Amino acid sequence: MSVPSQKLVSDELVNLLLYRVLDVEALTALPAFADHGRDTFDPWLATCRRLGGEVLAPTYAAMDASPPTLESRRTPWEERDERDEASVRVHPEMATVWEALAKAGVVAASRPFAVGGQQLPLTVATFATAYLMAGNLSAYGFAGLTAGAAHLIEAFGDEHLKETYMRPMYEGRMTGTMALTEPQAGSSLADIVTSARPTPEGHYLLRGAKIFISGGDHGFAENIVHLVLARIEGAPPGTKGLSLFVVPKLRADGDKVIANDVTVTGLIHKIGWRGIPSLALSFGDADDCRGWLVGPPNAGLRCMFQMMNEARIMIGVNAAATASVAYHAAVDYARARVQGRPLGAPPTAPPVPLIEHPDVRRMLLRQKAIVDASFCLLGVTARYADLAEHSPDALVRARSQQLLDLLTPIAKTFPAERGFEANALALQVHGGYGYSSEYLPEAWLRDQKLNSIHEGTTGIQSLDLLGRKAMAGAGAAMLALAEDVGHDCASAEAAGVAKERVLAVRAGLAQVLDLTRVLGERGAGGDLEGMLAHATDYLDALGVVVTSWMWLKMEAAVVGREDPFARGMVQASAYWLATELPRVEPLARLCASGERSFVDCRGEWFL
Amino acid sequence: MSVPSQKLVSDELVNLLLYRVLDVEALTALPAFADHGRDTFDPWLATCRRLGGEVLAPTYAAMDASPPTLESRRTPWEERDERDEASVRVHPEMATVWEALAKAGVVAASRPFAVGGQQLPLTVATFATAYLMAGNLSAYGFAGLTAGAAHLIEAFGDEHLKETYMRPMYEGRMTGTMALTEPQAGSSLADIVTSARPTPEGHYLLRGAKIFISGGDHGFAENIVHLVLARIEGAPPGTKGLSLFVVPKLRADGDKVIANDVTVTGLIHKIGWRGIPSLALSFGDADDCRGWLVGPPNAGLRCMFQMMNEARIMIGVNAAATASVAYHAAVDYARARVQGRPLGAPPTAPPVPLIEHPDVRRMLLRQKAIVDASFCLLGVTARYADLAEHSPDALVRARSQQLLDLLTPIAKTFPAERGFEANALALQVHGGYGYSSEYLPEAWLRDQKLNSIHEGTTGIQSLDLLGRKAMAGAGAAMLALAEDVGHDCASAEAAGVAKERVLAVRAGLAQVLDLTRVLGERGAGGDLEGMLAHATDYLDALGVVVTSWMWLKMEAAVVGREDPFARGMVQASAYWLATELPRVEPLARLCASGERSFVDCRGEWFL
Repeated sequence: MSVPSQKLVSDELVNLLLYRVLDVEALTALPAFADHGRDTFDPWLATCRRLGGEVLAPTYAAMDASPPTLESRRTPWEERDERDEASVRVHPEMATVWEALAKAGVVAASRPFAVGGQQLPLTVATFATAYLMAGNLSAYGFAGLTAGAAHLIEAFGDEHLKETYMRPMYEGRMTGTMALTEPQAGSSLADIVTSARPTPEGHYLLRGAKIFISGGDHGFAENIVHLVLARIEGAPPGTKGLSLFVVPKLRADGDKVIANDVTVTGLIHKIGWRGIPSLALSFGDADDCRGWLVGPPNAGLRCMFQMMNEARIMIGVNAAATASVAYHAAVDYARARVQGRPLGAPPTAPPVPLIEHPDVRRMLLRQKAIVDASFCLLGVTARYADLAEHSPDALVRARSQQLLDLLTPIAKTFPAERGFEANALALQVHGGYGYSSEYLPEAWLRDQKLNSIHEGTTGIQSLDLLGRKAMAGAGAAMLALAEDVGHDCASAEAAGVAKERVLAVRAGLAQVLDLTRVLGERGAGGDLEGMLAHATDYLDALGVVVTSWMWLKMEAAVVGREDPFARGMVQASAYWLATELPRVEPLARLCASGERSFVDCRGEWFL
Repeated sequence: MSVPSQKLVSDELVNLLLYRVLDVEALTALPAFADHGRDTFDPWLATCRRLGGEVLAPTYAAMDASPPTLESRRTPWEERDERDEASVRVHPEMATVWEALAKAGVVAASRPFAVGGQQLPLTVATFATAYLMAGNLSAYGFAGLTAGAAHLIEAFGDEHLKETYMRPMYEGRMTGTMALTEPQAGSSLADIVTSARPTPEGHYLLRGAKIFISGGDHGFAENIVHLVLARIEGAPPGTKGLSLFVVPKLRADGDKVIANDVTVTGLIHKIGWRGIPSLALSFGDADDCRGWLVGPPNAGLRCMFQMMNEARIMIGVNAAATASVAYHAAVDYARARVQGRPLGAPPTAPPVPLIEHPDVRRMLLRQKAIVDASFCLLGVTARYADLAEHSPDALVRARSQQLLDLLTPIAKTFPAERGFEANALALQVHGGYGYSSEYLPEAWLRDQKLNSIHEGTTGIQSLDLLGRKAMAGAGAAMLALAEDVGHDCASAEAAGVAKERVLAVRAGLAQVLDLTRVLGERGAGGDLEGMLAHATDYLDALGVVVTSWMWLKMEAAVVGREDPFARGMVQASAYWLATELPRVEPLARLCASGERSFVDCRGEWFL
């Protein structure tokens, strides 16, 4: 039986990224962060590191082994015919874990002082959160969802909702959910049919079914606050008719607390994230489910989208953290496990640790290259988010927002897709033992798979990137990206990074810029299908360029140092640029070529 | 709750491959297959198709949900201190399934008439087996292991062993295992320490521990016959001191049957292949474990290696079959599930099936390209095996053996690695539902992961390919490969395949030939490490060239046809050649460049 590796995320990496590569201390020049400095950042990082290692990680294997259950035994997906209150039982350790997270102030860490938060830059909160996610992603998941739901009320709710729900959520007394998906609609939010009927009392009566609602029921908090997308009766079709509602599990009725007609109708047996239940919920079966409008009518999706970048960045952080903890476990295993001997050694020579075999080091360096680049990209993206929100300079805000919008689909998808590859390699390093549930790499691999699906699948992110973000403002975001990459290329060269590596990144950038222009012209010419057909390949190519840029930034920050950490960073940079950047040119050629094999393949030809 | 897709493997594909692409009817000109023809092949394929669909597939989900258990409850991996006979309980359906497989003659299908088999070409048996594996890979696993173990006795055992064990195994009365791996040695067979002490009675007394022994115990057959690698006392170190033994679970003692001192010491909780137990076994705890030598002393690994190609091909078939069944399930789901609408359609337009979205078709076509190319490659490889064993022409035998040896690591690894990618895409097509255990794609994904680990990991296959197979006979196998690819390129062009596609395959071939020469010279110059560093990338590149060759062969066999199956094949060929072949040039450049990032990265730098 293995125990979780104590190393969840590399502290040296986090320090390098925050204080050298991202220079978060410079953010304290912004009024919003004026009270902050390394003296407030480091203690918060230490708190989360401790929570991740001492509170979350020790509960991970147990929660994975004993996922939530429905209190009344029935076949999953089966309809329920009676109503009950706390109908889902989560792992008993969850109550203790939640108390620790709430007490430490995890939920509101990046929220303003005014609402009880620490007003930390998202850039810092991102890395602090990585420790929590690497420790136990689904236990932390309750906090992440609560923060997201409360943030919506903070941004768009009235004072009553803030007082009644937002504050207790930020304090960890209540938890929150995001209730968007419906069984018949899946990713297609335009097809949401949950209805909201206005009443003279001001609240609405909701009726409808939602599915895949994470954290939708449990017994460890005072209340559960669902943020529900629904359609006010008579609203227009499509996403422009969606409104956002606060729908609590329990509501006040005079001085009593009563159930608000939200019923758990099913528990989904997920293959990962097994500490947090994913539920089918029914609203208003007894026509007594009250909801309160958040933001203007028919503006629900617009409100939700203002949180979307942050939600997607958090999926990326999760993906990077899940790959990170597995990478460190694989390194530990490869150092400890003695097996085989070097090429050409006689059978009488002593066997050596796995890490002495070059192909094992290849698998480890590939994982490291993916993990570190993911974290760096997430940090860069979060930093743009901080500037977009808090810079006093309107031009900086606008430019940062463009870059944030552009990078978000990549910062979500690259860690999810490549993280899955990294997690599979971590299992592979463990060999036959990795194929057993006695070791954790297989559990992290299962966890990781969700990240390419939730908060917008990889296909949806790719269409968003190419169809919207890269094209917005006549390609303004791509030009801003080119500027920042160019600037960092010059800095890297000045710092002493090998010139051919810098040139390779410049060349990759030129290839995707050129490709973007070609595709933009194709779209402008009316061939939207032709422009978007290879959107997933486009995201792949741009992801490689962006992560190569990350490696230049990281290498520039350590070049010349001789310590083991710095040496490893330089090797990973060399590996990534040598093995991935050369993929950009053929990928760009493919996207530009108008290749139509699958576009033209009719549904009935898949035999 | 989904039921397994009835489509396990495409019948149209199997027919195309066997009778057009591989022309198996031509094999009936060989004396060994003189009694055969399409009139014997087709009934056998139909039998296995029926067994796969009606006997195996219906038991798959239940076996995955209820894996084998140790009869006495204890922590996995824990040492056992008592001895008992049938200490592992497999799923109760297994007995019925086994009876059906045995009765149909699955175990001995490709073995000679003389030993009770049907003497089928391996090429035909390969596709018949694919249906069984796609239905329920681990239930079939018992048969595959039994066939392999009996085959070893057939090839190297004396008459007594053949009569006592081989015949009952081929008849399905006994099952077999391959007991190679030891806990301390893992993939490093040179470090096997299980000992064999000769006795005056002619048998040996074995003592040692084995791990990951699939099918190592159960209760549904008369006996279990372990083929055990062990070291006769005083034998040389390394693999040259290993001998092969038959070690039954039960042995005759006068007219009684008694236990042969083989103890189950642990059950591994595998994440897939959950119908067949993977066990830790202890031999000779009471110094009463008898084994009988198979083949000459110290020739155990040599004997085992003569079966290795076939064993590895069978892993490839398993990988292709596991990707196949998931692909067909994904196609079914994408046709049935209505979600979203085409680009630019108004929200009032009706939603469409998933398969109408280009990116979903991309994911399906990619799966198809991987599955079909895998099957074709396995067929081509099996055909070389048939010729290598049965051609009356010594030159044909030698040349076919070279190509068999060369292609086997690719035929094992390509389906395993790319099949994992295909299985992940099948899950992705199912969206959030795919992330639940109510649907089978996640189970097939778990199953698939083992194929890159067992029977030699991907890293080991890559070293074997580049270090041995591609270099053997001064590159003779690569030249033979070039001849056959060149021949098929000419045929494809003559058949009407687009000239630029044929040229692209020729160019890819030239790139890997050139690379092989460069690496060979590097090795000949003494830099073995530099030659082999990128062996995994070399296998990747050669795998792409070889599968592109497969697509040319398949496309040439359908070009001009207008039926849906043929149209789909042409689209998949176009997709593969457009998206994968362009990867060969940068991969070849990488392998040739002497890139050393991970070679030079010291163990302590992975931080």
